[in-house]
Amino acid sequence: MSSAITTEGRPGAGDAPDGTGRAVLAATLELCRVQPPVPIDLAAIAARAGVPEADVLARWPSAEAVLLDALRGEVAPALVFPDTGDFAADLRAQLVAIARVFADPAVGPRLVALAGAAGRDPAIARAFAERVFKPNRMLSRRRFEQARAAGQLRPEVDVDTGIDLAFGPLWFRLLLSTAPLSPEYAAAVAELALDGLGPAH
Amino acid sequence: MSSAITTEGRPGAGDAPDGTGRAVLAATLELCRVQPPVPIDLAAIAARAGVPEADVLARWPSAEAVLLDALRGEVAPALVFPDTGDFAADLRAQLVAIARVFADPAVGPRLVALAGAAGRDPAIARAFAERVFKPNRMLSRRRFEQARAAGQLRPEVDVDTGIDLAFGPLWFRLLLSTAPLSPEYAAAVAELALDGLGPAH
Repeated sequence: MSSAITTEGRPGAGDAPDGTGRAVLAATLELCRVQPPVPIDLAAIAARAGVPEADVLARWPSAEAVLLDALRGEVAPALVFPDTGDFAADLRAQLVAIARVFADPAVGPRLVALAGAAGRDPAIARAFAERVFKPNRMLSRRRFEQARAAGQLRPEVDVDTGIDLAFGPLWFRLLLSTAPLSPEYAAAVAELALDGLGPAH
Repeated sequence: MSSAITTEGRPGAGDAPDGTGRAVLAATLELCRVQPPVPIDLAAIAARAGVPEADVLARWPSAEAVLLDALRGEVAPALVFPDTGDFAADLRAQLVAIARVFADPAVGPRLVALAGAAGRDPAIARAFAERVFKPNRMLSRRRFEQARAAGQLRPEVDVDTGIDLAFGPLWFRLLLSTAPLSPEYAAAVAELALDGLGPAH
């Protein structure tokens, strides 16, 4: 049937999209890549996919819900937390990968728009939490816990706070557009998160 | 005249608000405190302040611009980075103060809405950057640089990345609503930012 965001939204709870659903997701990604950016609403998605709007709405409740699934499918493969056994190197690689995704003009501004939509629409907020945030957090948690077990994290570090410390700065720059996101910035954040601000102790 | 957000927006560039302007700001803060939350649009602001909408629009270009100035005036006094000479204690105090502001139901959700509006409206984005982000960043930078000079920060720390590391997690939780913001969380972020995730080195 569909990867319907209207199901309870557990990751993997939805079925795989059918042919029409795949066409809709592909069309939405194409729209993301148009520069300068174009509005991505139901009409634009349906027109690009060559299907009636009703066929989109049979599978997703809103254009934002389509966009979220389209970006998720595009971005998720790039964000599988690496595990080479060297936590410092893996954290740096993961933050650099995220910075590249956020800096992609087809992706970053759309994530900002989705976060804004989540602030206004609880259904989008739930979908974002269940389909983007929680799966990514689970991957990070597993990697942080392995690192802690391997003695590569201080044993008393709270894993969720630690993940926020490492990943928060990138989201901060993305969502508030305070400064550009670059691989160099991501690498500096990784190093600083590991070593801390304070003098050697 | 006004604290007009339509001026180039350098902090302090606008004149102080006149009597009507002050009434508009006070009315907007009152609206922020109504629970459950109510829409804060031009009509609501004008009605609460007892002035015509035209009087609001003579001073600010939009309801969001009023809201930004109202919150700024309310919150800024709570966020003067302390300087007791003990950077670790001061950072913790500042992060705890921010967590309290973000967790205030009259403030946090409105900041989220403003950040969302900034993503859609470049004028709001500029106002946010000039009137909220930059003045706060300057205060933080000064305190971080003092700490570095006092040997309370590693000398090679890039100050802007360090500020992002400490403050990013709180914005992350606020803007994505991934978990509650508490003083305890803020204190844990401060400690982790200073000590780092990695094992003692």
